[in-house]
Formats: sequence, structure tokens, C-alpha cells
Amino acid sequence: MKRIAIVGYGNLGKACEKYARESDDIELVGIFSRRSGLSSRYGTPIFPQNEIYDAAHDIDVAALCLGSANDLAAFGLSLAGKANTVDSFDTHAKMRDYIAQMDARANDGGKLSLVGIGWDPGLFSLARALFDGAMPDGVTNTFWGEGVSQGHSEAIRRIDGVEDAIQYTVPKREAMRLAMEGRKLSDAERHRRVCYVVAKEGADRDEIERKIREMPNYFAGYEVDIRFIDAESLKRDHGGMPHGGKVTRVARGNKSFMEFSLRLESNPQFTAGVLMRYAVACADLNASGERGAKTILDIPISAILKGEDKLGFV
Amino acid sequence: MKRIAIVGYGNLGKACEKYARESDDIELVGIFSRRSGLSSRYGTPIFPQNEIYDAAHDIDVAALCLGSANDLAAFGLSLAGKANTVDSFDTHAKMRDYIAQMDARANDGGKLSLVGIGWDPGLFSLARALFDGAMPDGVTNTFWGEGVSQGHSEAIRRIDGVEDAIQYTVPKREAMRLAMEGRKLSDAERHRRVCYVVAKEGADRDEIERKIREMPNYFAGYEVDIRFIDAESLKRDHGGMPHGGKVTRVARGNKSFMEFSLRLESNPQFTAGVLMRYAVACADLNASGERGAKTILDIPISAILKGEDKLGFV
Repeated sequence: MKRIAIVGYGNLGKACEKYARESDDIELVGIFSRRSGLSSRYGTPIFPQNEIYDAAHDIDVAALCLGSANDLAAFGLSLAGKANTVDSFDTHAKMRDYIAQMDARANDGGKLSLVGIGWDPGLFSLARALFDGAMPDGVTNTFWGEGVSQGHSEAIRRIDGVEDAIQYTVPKREAMRLAMEGRKLSDAERHRRVCYVVAKEGADRDEIERKIREMPNYFAGYEVDIRFIDAESLKRDHGGMPHGGKVTRVARGNKSFMEFSLRLESNPQFTAGVLMRYAVACADLNASGERGAKTILDIPISAILKGEDKLGFV
Repeated sequence: MKRIAIVGYGNLGKACEKYARESDDIELVGIFSRRSGLSSRYGTPIFPQNEIYDAAHDIDVAALCLGSANDLAAFGLSLAGKANTVDSFDTHAKMRDYIAQMDARANDGGKLSLVGIGWDPGLFSLARALFDGAMPDGVTNTFWGEGVSQGHSEAIRRIDGVEDAIQYTVPKREAMRLAMEGRKLSDAERHRRVCYVVAKEGADRDEIERKIREMPNYFAGYEVDIRFIDAESLKRDHGGMPHGGKVTRVARGNKSFMEFSLRLESNPQFTAGVLMRYAVACADLNASGERGAKTILDIPISAILKGEDKLGFV
């Protein structure tokens, strides 16, 4: 049994709690959250987030499930080296710095921090690396969706006059065809963005639409489809969190290819499963001497197999 | 530069030679073959197979490319512990024994032997284990083909009255549909076997057909399609070695799934690439202290990335 703490109690934290409660090799020590007045339907004890530092000596791993990338990075750095940690940090532009800093602290404290654990980064990272190693002369493309992007949904919600919004990332069929022909495509070439927006009463919809379309990094340069709907429709028709995607690699000459694809009924539930499985592995690996910050590429698959007969998979 | 020897000079050995010759981190020490009178179009020196034992101290890894599983196992056991080895041993029923014996010898000699490296066993083993870890409550099926099975082709060629033969393993469409519905299917339920047979003059074709259909393990119990053709057609239309397949996993409820698929223009060329990449990794891992026999599940993907920026894949 591994003693695991969950830090953060949003969609991912709740999904981790569910997974931990149903696992026979995880003892859930508690939820650590910045928000007060929360309760758990499983009766899991909920502590103030800052109490994790005192509890660190008594847990095997902390699973960091904080919502924003900034919160996650700051908190990860404050805990690395005091406890083993797993997280699904996903800001590619800041990954290098984050890992370097986590590595230094985790090494100092003799602890192990697994960074970027989920499906992307995570399983898709594994696929990209494995495909490159196995088929050196080729072109890789990653497609996301169709699925809800929390980051893009949140970006729309921050616009004046927007009450609520959901953004779907949708891979373009034509781009998938071009990928099979060995074309390396940009994010904007591979995806279009479909936005369901609930406007506040009296809000200027043209202005909201303009602000979405011009938002740098998120929407500018993309094919964007914006649909205004009412709050009830949003809740009724867009309340799920399905996601999916695929990594493709085509060898030069386009006669050999590899593909790894996923379709997920619930993005947080799947990500939680991966995170918890690597959390258990993290405790085992640290116990056997591993320390520092590592990504999913550094961990053999055998580390996440619990009790199963490894040779059964070979 | 890793000093690598190739043992065996059939399709796989030749494909490894080509890969090694085009690699900037492999120095090909030589080919070691039981057959005499061979020559290499690359001018690679070819030695009698038994000379590998004397050369063992002077190479980093030996890539075992022997044709039959029996030859491979016997030879692997004779070399393990004297040199690092990689092989694509693929007889599932004997895998457990083979690995146990290789592990004992490799450990004794302080060497590392990587066993079952290729695409199945190999990349598909990785996929099966990863899928099981990431989606614990689900059903996995592996489909092979459409592609040439050397073992089944060879089994037909050994029948009296057969001059030559090629056997394609073909996944059944209906089985793929059932797999998506969460059904666990047997090999025979998932695949049919299409045989192109060249009969010797005057041979009893009905008898050949009967012997194929009744052959235990290979064809009995399978849907088998047998087509007699002439030698020229076999050479012209069935001289390639394409292959492929996929590993699928469906979560309980059938609303989430994962799939890893491959389509290969040349089965031996692709397998050789994987084998050589893990050969280089094998030398590095042994140099850093790893010893014994291991499968692909025990090796982190980062071990096969040569010089690339690992974080670029994350």
C-alpha cells in the first residue's frame, strides 16, 4: 500500500480521489486544497493546502492536481525534495526550466519527482520518442481531439461579456491525410477550434467574437468556429469531458507508418489513472534509489505493472 | 561508436547490416555465419559463426539474427555472459525458460542480454503493457497483418510435393469490430490465413491442401484460403515482405479505447532498425552497470534516443 496525498481538488483531483478509492494498492492520506468548506463524497479528509509540508514525511507520494500551470509549477518547486511528487505539468515552453529546477531540489532532498505524466504530455510523449527511435527517417504529427480544451475554454470565459464557454479542439481531416503523405504540419494547420459561448445579457457579441479570433497563441491564426448558445444548452449538451487524439509517424517514402491513438470518455478520469499508476511507481522507484526529476521517457513500462506477470505482455 | 557484430545472415541479418552501414554510431565488426562462401555487397567481413566466441571480448554487442527459434535459443545461451546480446526471440511458449537461462548466464558474466526486441515481441509488447497500466479495466487484442508470416510459409514448404509457398496472415474485419465491443478473441478468431502454394509437377494438390488445413498449431482451427499458383507468379507478386498489425484496448463500457498500429513496407528492415537501436542502448546500459537478461519492458524509452533532445518529445 502506498500512502498518497492529492493536492488540488478540481476535476483532476476528484478523478484521482475516485481512482485511489477504488485501488487496492493506494491508501489515500487526504486531499490538500486551498479552498475551504469543501467536502468529499468518499469522506476523504480535506486539509488546508499548506499542511502538506508538515505531512510530507508521512506520505509516499504527493499527486499535484492544481489547475493552472503557474500554480502547479510554484507548488511543485516548493514541495520537490520534501516529498516524492507526480504531476501533469503541460506547458511545453516552460518544461525545460521546470524540470531543471525540480531536478535540483528533488536531488537535494533524495526524492523523486515525475513530471509531465498524463496522456499529453505523457503517453503521447512516449509514442513520439518511441516512433522516432524505431523509425528514424520520418515525420511525426500529433493530433488532439475532438475534445474539450480546458485552457481554451477558460481563455474565452475571461473575455468581458462572456458568462460561460466550452472550446473543442478538432483535428482537420485534410491535415490527417497530409500527415499520411509525410507533411509536417503546424498546430494551426492540424486543428480547428469550435467555441460554444454563452454571452451575458446585453453583451456585444461581435466584440466577443472579435476578441476570441484575435487572441494570440490561443485562437489567432486558427480556423475558428464560434456559436452563441444559451446557458441551459451549454450545460445540457457540453457538460462531458471527452477527449482523444493520435500521434502519427510516416517513414520517408510514405510506405510505412505508425500510429498511436486514444479516445477517452473522460479526460480527467483517464489522466488520473495514469497519474496514480505512476505515483505508485514513483514511490517504488525512489525506494530503490532513484532521485531527481524525471519524465515518462525515463521510466521503464515495467515500473507501472503492479503484480502482473510482466512476461505475459511480451 | 558501438562495435557491433551480426550473427546470422538471412533477411534480418542483411537488414541489420544495411542499417548499421548507414548509421553514424555503429561500427560493424563483421558478420558471423554458419554458411560458407557468402559475400557482402558492402564488403563487410564474414567470419565462421563459431569465431564469435573469440571475438566476443572485442565487441560491444552481438545482434543475434538466426533464422529458427531453436537455433537462436541455443546460440543465445552459448554467448550470453560472454558478450552483450540483443535478439528478437519470439516463441512465446518458450520465452519464460529462455529468459531465465539467459539471465543466469548474463549475470554470471556481467553482461546484458536484451530479449524479444522487434515489433512483436517488442513494440507491441510495450503497447500491451502500457495499455494495461493506463486503462486497467479493459480488454486487449493484438491483430497481425496483413503480412507474410515466415514461420507459416516455411511450414508449408516442408510438406511433400510443395516447391515453394508464401503465407499471409490477415486480420478479420469482423473480429476488429468485435474487439471494439470489448470481446477478447483467440488468434484463430482474429485472423485468417491465405496461402499461395507452388506445387511440384505431378504432386497431389488435394493431399497438400489437406496437410495444410490439418497442420496443428499452424493452420488447424483457422479459416484457411489456399491458392495454387506457378513459381513465376509467386516470385513476381509475392516477393515483398510487408507486414503490420495493431494492438487495441477497449475500456469496460466500450466508450474509451487505445490503439497502436503499424504498417511496414519491409518487416525485416523495420525489425532490424529496432534491434540495432536497442543494440546501441544495450552497450550503453551495460556500461552503466545493467546486467542480466531484460525485455523491452525493462528499458526506458530514453535509452534508445541517440543525442536527441529528450525533452523535445515530451
